Amino acid sequence: MIAALPDRAVTRVKLLAAFAAGLPLGPETEPHLRGALQQTLLHPGSLIRAQLVYELAGAYGLKDDRAEKLAVAVEYFHTASLLFDDLPCMDDATQRRGEPCVHRSHGEAAAMLAALGLVNRAYALLWSGLAGSTPEQQSAAGDYVEKCLGVEGVLNGQSQDLHYASRTGNRPSPQQIATGKTVSLIQLSLVLPALLGGAEPAEVRLLERLAAFWGLSYQALDDLKDVFQQSEQTGKTAARDASLNRPNLALAIGATNALRRLERLLRLGDCTLERLLQRLPSLAFLTELRGRFREELAGLQISKNAFA
Amino acid sequence: MIAALPDRAVTRVKLLAAFAAGLPLGPETEPHLRGALQQTLLHPGSLIRAQLVYELAGAYGLKDDRAEKLAVAVEYFHTASLLFDDLPCMDDATQRRGEPCVHRSHGEAAAMLAALGLVNRAYALLWSGLAGSTPEQQSAAGDYVEKCLGVEGVLNGQSQDLHYASRTGNRPSPQQIATGKTVSLIQLSLVLPALLGGAEPAEVRLLERLAAFWGLSYQALDDLKDVFQQSEQTGKTAARDASLNRPNLALAIGATNALRRLERLLRLGDCTLERLLQRLPSLAFLTELRGRFREELAGLQISKNAFA
Repeated sequence: MIAALPDRAVTRVKLLAAFAAGLPLGPETEPHLRGALQQTLLHPGSLIRAQLVYELAGAYGLKDDRAEKLAVAVEYFHTASLLFDDLPCMDDATQRRGEPCVHRSHGEAAAMLAALGLVNRAYALLWSGLAGSTPEQQSAAGDYVEKCLGVEGVLNGQSQDLHYASRTGNRPSPQQIATGKTVSLIQLSLVLPALLGGAEPAEVRLLERLAAFWGLSYQALDDLKDVFQQSEQTGKTAARDASLNRPNLALAIGATNALRRLERLLRLGDCTLERLLQRLPSLAFLTELRGRFREELAGLQISKNAFA
Repeated sequence: MIAALPDRAVTRVKLLAAFAAGLPLGPETEPHLRGALQQTLLHPGSLIRAQLVYELAGAYGLKDDRAEKLAVAVEYFHTASLLFDDLPCMDDATQRRGEPCVHRSHGEAAAMLAALGLVNRAYALLWSGLAGSTPEQQSAAGDYVEKCLGVEGVLNGQSQDLHYASRTGNRPSPQQIATGKTVSLIQLSLVLPALLGGAEPAEVRLLERLAAFWGLSYQALDDLKDVFQQSEQTGKTAARDASLNRPNLALAIGATNALRRLERLLRLGDCTLERLLQRLPSLAFLTELRGRFREELAGLQISKNAFA
């Protein structure tokens, strides 16, 4: 007898399949473009954003096929942003998800066209996932998508991140940059299904704040890891952010202050989550994610003495 | 007394303003991204696609603000595709619309992020321009947008165009490549407003065929110009398509056959347009465009003797 999989694992398998099958390739697809898309669709990463969207959509009463479309759409947007970020003129990365980056395997043009294919498919899925909500809900969702993904959101964050080194004087703080670059897509994941599910404005605000606290926590954790690594290796390998002069909270305000900031962000996230769960107990799955942050932070505490 | 501008000129001024103002930039926009977008928004090109969308939308009874949103959206998609096409890993262009290409003025990353900003804004405008059509019309329009802009449409055409040189044997014909690369966006311009305006299926088919004949005519004309240029300059400057081994109808089937094909495509376009105007006299503005093709072709005939 085979033990039943827990619900969460079933969801993950389902989303893995939907991610892989969400952009069908016809026989006419040009081979480089096909190769770039196949590599991308077969290496989906954590699918954490898709899981958030899917669970939220379910909690807000959206039907399963709509929840799945919206989940894959947001994950495609995220994946497209990684394909662009890895390009030589951006982060010039070599590896992603355990494979050579797509532009290294299939060429830069194919990586870009594949990313644009994901973006177009994501919009088609969103468009289709909207059906069933009221025109007002659809309109609010459309505005929110652009706020997160457009020039005010992730594109500005990425541009600020890339050009941080060349700006002097009045440059944005690492936290402002993380708000564009990292928070935007987490906000989209939490808020989009709520808007389409007719959430109360107060709930939308709480979800938006939760996403901000979590996104900033995630970025602060990442920045601290970058610096701890440098410390532990006593300068043998310079940490990436310091060597590239990229925005890093720990470099900007010191590691001890950054750790305090992270603790504070997590506390604020906990308070927000608590208020949210009082209103909507069906969002209890969100506590799992909070748990993941705490685990990561606990791992970090071990090396905290380096800064004492 | 100032003479009144003809309607078409008024429309063009209106669309120029809408193109420039359609993507407002906040004070927080990162300077490279801002520069890339400002250069793009201030150099709109012919706006021919926007004019087609706008006039079609009007003929199908869409309100003026919807027509304008859809027109700017399609033009932003087109402009974004040019920003990508000009990049070093694609056509490696140096000039566009009388200016150095955006990636030459503001960097490759800024050009890409600006193009993505246009794409996101275009989808937001489309989304907003949909409101007022029935859910069925919206859904058909959404599917059509992806068919034209996605992996089946312009992205595949661009990928085939780029990798034409490296393919041997069973490679797509210049006409197949032009169908993806050039026809797709003209089809979007003609069909999208018709779908949202509740056009009969027979009208949609006629518009789709007209766009195909025009798109292929346009590409054939472009290919012939490329080859005539080479002939006239007797090899001093090699024609671009031949030197880069890009798909070119005249190189593939010979200039005389390509000229015959172009004449045939224009005749087919004329027949299609005639049938369309019998059904919908309000689309008479389309005859102007047909006139432009004929003029260009007449210019070409002068040098036709080179191939006699």
